[in-house]
Amino acid sequence: MCSTKRVWNIVKMYFPVLGWLPIYQIKQWLPGDIVAGITTGMVCALQGLAYSLLVNVAPVYGLYAAFFPILTYFILGTSRHLSVGPFPVTCLMVGAVVLTLAPDSNFMQPGNTTGVNGTTVMVLNAAARDTQRLAIAMSMTVLIGVFQVAMGVVQLGFLVRYLSDPLVGGFTTAAALQVVVSQLKIIFNVPVGNYNGILSLFYTIGDVFKNIKQTNLVDLVAAVLTIIVVMVVKEINAKFQKTLPVPIPIEVFVTIIDAGVSYALNLSGHYGAGVVNTIPRGFIPPQPPDVSLFSSIAGSSFSTGVVSYAIAISVAKVYAAKHELTVDGNQELLAFGISNIFCGAFSGFVATTALSRTAIQESTGGKTQVAGLISALMVFIVIMALGPLLQPLQKSVLGGIVVANLKGMFMQVLDIPILWRKNKTDCFIWVFTCISCIVLGLDIGLLTGLVFELATVVIRTQFPSCASLGNAPSTDIYKNMKDYKAITEIPGIKVFKCTAPIYFANIEYLKDQIKHKVGFDAVRVFKKRNKALKKIHRLIKKGKLKFTEVHNHTAHWISHLYIYKYLLSIQIYWTSVLPVNVNVPKVNIHSLVMDFSAVSFLDVMAAKSLKLILKEFLRIGVSVYIAGCDGMACLIAHVVTICVEWQTSFLFFLFPLSSFESHVLLYCKSSSLT
Amino acid sequence: MCSTKRVWNIVKMYFPVLGWLPIYQIKQWLPGDIVAGITTGMVCALQGLAYSLLVNVAPVYGLYAAFFPILTYFILGTSRHLSVGPFPVTCLMVGAVVLTLAPDSNFMQPGNTTGVNGTTVMVLNAAARDTQRLAIAMSMTVLIGVFQVAMGVVQLGFLVRYLSDPLVGGFTTAAALQVVVSQLKIIFNVPVGNYNGILSLFYTIGDVFKNIKQTNLVDLVAAVLTIIVVMVVKEINAKFQKTLPVPIPIEVFVTIIDAGVSYALNLSGHYGAGVVNTIPRGFIPPQPPDVSLFSSIAGSSFSTGVVSYAIAISVAKVYAAKHELTVDGNQELLAFGISNIFCGAFSGFVATTALSRTAIQESTGGKTQVAGLISALMVFIVIMALGPLLQPLQKSVLGGIVVANLKGMFMQVLDIPILWRKNKTDCFIWVFTCISCIVLGLDIGLLTGLVFELATVVIRTQFPSCASLGNAPSTDIYKNMKDYKAITEIPGIKVFKCTAPIYFANIEYLKDQIKHKVGFDAVRVFKKRNKALKKIHRLIKKGKLKFTEVHNHTAHWISHLYIYKYLLSIQIYWTSVLPVNVNVPKVNIHSLVMDFSAVSFLDVMAAKSLKLILKEFLRIGVSVYIAGCDGMACLIAHVVTICVEWQTSFLFFLFPLSSFESHVLLYCKSSSLT
Repeated sequence: MCSTKRVWNIVKMYFPVLGWLPIYQIKQWLPGDIVAGITTGMVCALQGLAYSLLVNVAPVYGLYAAFFPILTYFILGTSRHLSVGPFPVTCLMVGAVVLTLAPDSNFMQPGNTTGVNGTTVMVLNAAARDTQRLAIAMSMTVLIGVFQVAMGVVQLGFLVRYLSDPLVGGFTTAAALQVVVSQLKIIFNVPVGNYNGILSLFYTIGDVFKNIKQTNLVDLVAAVLTIIVVMVVKEINAKFQKTLPVPIPIEVFVTIIDAGVSYALNLSGHYGAGVVNTIPRGFIPPQPPDVSLFSSIAGSSFSTGVVSYAIAISVAKVYAAKHELTVDGNQELLAFGISNIFCGAFSGFVATTALSRTAIQESTGGKTQVAGLISALMVFIVIMALGPLLQPLQKSVLGGIVVANLKGMFMQVLDIPILWRKNKTDCFIWVFTCISCIVLGLDIGLLTGLVFELATVVIRTQFPSCASLGNAPSTDIYKNMKDYKAITEIPGIKVFKCTAPIYFANIEYLKDQIKHKVGFDAVRVFKKRNKALKKIHRLIKKGKLKFTEVHNHTAHWISHLYIYKYLLSIQIYWTSVLPVNVNVPKVNIHSLVMDFSAVSFLDVMAAKSLKLILKEFLRIGVSVYIAGCDGMACLIAHVVTICVEWQTSFLFFLFPLSSFESHVLLYCKSSSLT
Repeated sequence: MCSTKRVWNIVKMYFPVLGWLPIYQIKQWLPGDIVAGITTGMVCALQGLAYSLLVNVAPVYGLYAAFFPILTYFILGTSRHLSVGPFPVTCLMVGAVVLTLAPDSNFMQPGNTTGVNGTTVMVLNAAARDTQRLAIAMSMTVLIGVFQVAMGVVQLGFLVRYLSDPLVGGFTTAAALQVVVSQLKIIFNVPVGNYNGILSLFYTIGDVFKNIKQTNLVDLVAAVLTIIVVMVVKEINAKFQKTLPVPIPIEVFVTIIDAGVSYALNLSGHYGAGVVNTIPRGFIPPQPPDVSLFSSIAGSSFSTGVVSYAIAISVAKVYAAKHELTVDGNQELLAFGISNIFCGAFSGFVATTALSRTAIQESTGGKTQVAGLISALMVFIVIMALGPLLQPLQKSVLGGIVVANLKGMFMQVLDIPILWRKNKTDCFIWVFTCISCIVLGLDIGLLTGLVFELATVVIRTQFPSCASLGNAPSTDIYKNMKDYKAITEIPGIKVFKCTAPIYFANIEYLKDQIKHKVGFDAVRVFKKRNKALKKIHRLIKKGKLKFTEVHNHTAHWISHLYIYKYLLSIQIYWTSVLPVNVNVPKVNIHSLVMDFSAVSFLDVMAAKSLKLILKEFLRIGVSVYIAGCDGMACLIAHVVTICVEWQTSFLFFLFPLSSFESHVLLYCKSSSLT
């Protein structure tokens, strides 16, 4: 009985639908789900058509992309509110690969007409080009799915945490700009070269301006009107969210109106407007991906897969938190991976979610993925029945819908001043990622931003704040000398605190800081003392100096020169008065306490350098204590062994600093010679 | 007077020679400098000839590379012991660029002979190729110098710290392997294609094996003999370091013997051995670099510049530490930068130092750069007079000398087990960098290794050790509950400690840890309580439950249901006994103390999530305290403001945790209701 339940739980984990469908509350949830499903479904179909332009494939495939992934996500997804389907940023990333691997120039063939000088005129074989482009888009979608499933299987969902909010903010803002620029050629209906990679954004803008005289005014006007109307109505939707029963699906109205106008006035024939043209009815049988492409699209597929997952999971988490539900990161990877494989096989392209569409689904009352299923039904109706009616639709109207939906992403620019006030480093990450994504393209830009982000973590620990601590009188509290007035240093003892892990990047800086805080350079002191020692030796030989033999290890004090012979070697009390012509730098401490309570790890280089630092202090007679260093026992122990071999006056404590008062500092005080 | 001195100090800073030459101790230093200079000079000339093979230019340019940089470094360098000149790793990095930009295939031209089928036979235009290769090598050397000067001017010397010991160890070991493989074609004297970039190492080895039947036995035997003899004699030099007056300059003997034998037996003519051939006497007038190449070599030049500087500075620091002198990182950048520009202008190639050669210079008594100057003089003699005598020298002997000098770099492999024991992460960095440099080539491999190294720093802080602390009875010491037996938690108070900065990568992990340590999920508790509240409301409405009105904010206790009406809302004591059919998860703490003493920074995402965590606890009646968080006041304050707005039971302390005993915990105890 118990094992059956365990199996059932595991099955439920991999098929979350079994968890919520049996407890589906028809009365309370179904009405909301139906309204939400119908509204979202119409928007989803339209956005599918529009985003297909970003992928550089025919619009009908956008409808497939808006239909298939919902079916698998319904069964496998853990989020109840996500509206699964195409998203402009990921579509653009797939589109960039499509353009790179299948540019127009690859499909020029000798035409039937002959040029003026008898040369053959090359014409574009659009059919071959489109077949190849579709093959690339669907193969890439399948590969993205494979990567996501693989990451889900090995539980790599946590990697998405590296995509921090500022990084994603900068990335999506740059992506929005890239999307707008990619739509310019459709909105203006001007010829633009296929650019990709570094600076392609600027080349594209350049081409648009070069050919701006060829602008098709009918297309431009339609696009501008679309943008204005859609943005205004969305603003109204947001403002009257509470009074409107459902938000106005303005994209649908605009599309229907434009399709009607375009058909009535024959905009395509009379004015040369770019229209959608063929939208075939029905589906294409599933196709295997072109495996030979995999090696050339692997890198981009991986980054697109990560980005699409990151977008989906962050949106899912927002709504899970709002409704106090949970989403499972690794199950989501599996769900999106399988959805993408499924969708790619049926000639769709990469699926994730859009914040705006999910917001519609949730705000119109969507409670579960039943709403998603109903929205898929709406897309199904468009595919099976309404498609041909949309054939006269202007592409520029679809472009306008794409642009109008980017407002939210552009508004993220307003985060910059907020970030600047809160945390400069995070602000730099935002700006750097955004600029590098604009200049270098989305995938390389994202990688550059990621490296920069990792580097900031290192840099934040590279120049740690180091402090010399003082004691708050009659307490056991030690605080930074700079921050408080009433605290004092215990004479002869320097307490040094470092607030970062100690490793290769900051060990040199730390050395300088210790030197600075103790006020002398231990190496220089040692050298000067050695010189002085030679001098004293010479003076003794010449009989100009006397020394006293001391037995039983007891120090005897002589009027003005404290030298005693101990085990046949001469030892000198450097802190006492020396012969007039012997000069050594003053060392005014007998103990250095290093507070390691904020040091979270040490590496090999740090251990090596610490050893050296300890030796340098020990040989000039300054005892070194390390306080509050639990959790690093292994490496510290290594440092210690060496030091113990070398000299025994090194002590090693796991107590936090405050315990020093009783345990160590008092010992130092009592045992010190001054 | 004072300002004159200041000017003089600044001049001395930029021209360190003015600091040590006026105090040059002729009697004590000159004899050592002369012996060291002569020994090093001979080795340096030979290594220059040998390393030119790595750069793929004629051997004479290696002599220039061993001569010019010493002159400028004498004036500008801060290290007294470095033997400045070519080093195999950097030579190979320049050579890789030379091969990529000027492969043999670029210089094929129609020959005079005609093939069997009347086709033109293509022959190699070696002269054009060599001119182009030299132009690339010298332009790259100048550009490396420019980068180094630029980095010196903006004081970027600290960037070298990112090249940690394990990283450099893995890199140089891989480089040694790359060098050996690049010498195989010379040692076997077989034709090998020009490979570069990813996997080139394996292609080269493949080619050598494919053509191994064409091996020139005379060359192979000479090379193998050279390797054995040089390695054995170097072993002897090391073993009898103290008894030998100077180490045996075995490279010089081997070269002289081989040149004699080769000339006498006419190895080149009779046996087809590959010999050095033309070594012209004298110098070439300075040439400007080919600026048009700069854009295509910029990336490699930068990485080579950083590597060459990193090698030089690390060797310089070793000897500075030994002799208790100092080297100035930024002045060294200027010195090497100007030396490289100077050297490149005179057709030399990139200068840094070699550990082995510097070891010779120091161990034979070199005290200052006067030894360097004398070694330059030796190279000068070779260039002006002895060059032609070396023309019959076999190239394979030079290749053998290169390989025999790599022993030290290969021995670094023995560091792996040591690193594994000391620190696994550092061991991974070593191995990863080594493998990626072997597979991807030196520059991309180094970059990959660097990114990996930065990522390890992030990962080391991504899964910080979190602990719940307990109190050591009758002390103010709080330690990890797991580490000690005798410590106890104060009832009702959970003390949570995180030992890493809190930022985007670890905030989710931290949330889970907090949930785990406190033993309940605050969100779930809140939901369950809300449900229970509704139930209680219903029960009260139905008259099945009674509640007591409480005035003056005082809690009155009723026999078995503790509900009181306060400001018209119902409040329930969840920890007391509830009606039989109302179940809520047990919350057994009233206070959560977060010890932030080991948290070195917070980022925006962390602050946002912390806010959320605090809210979740506060709304179920658990007070949250943050302890020991100096230095992060700004961000913490932000968290606090929000929490203060939301509820006032949040306290914020700068005291270290131990001060809680008196300040906070007692307050908690006295004010708690249980």
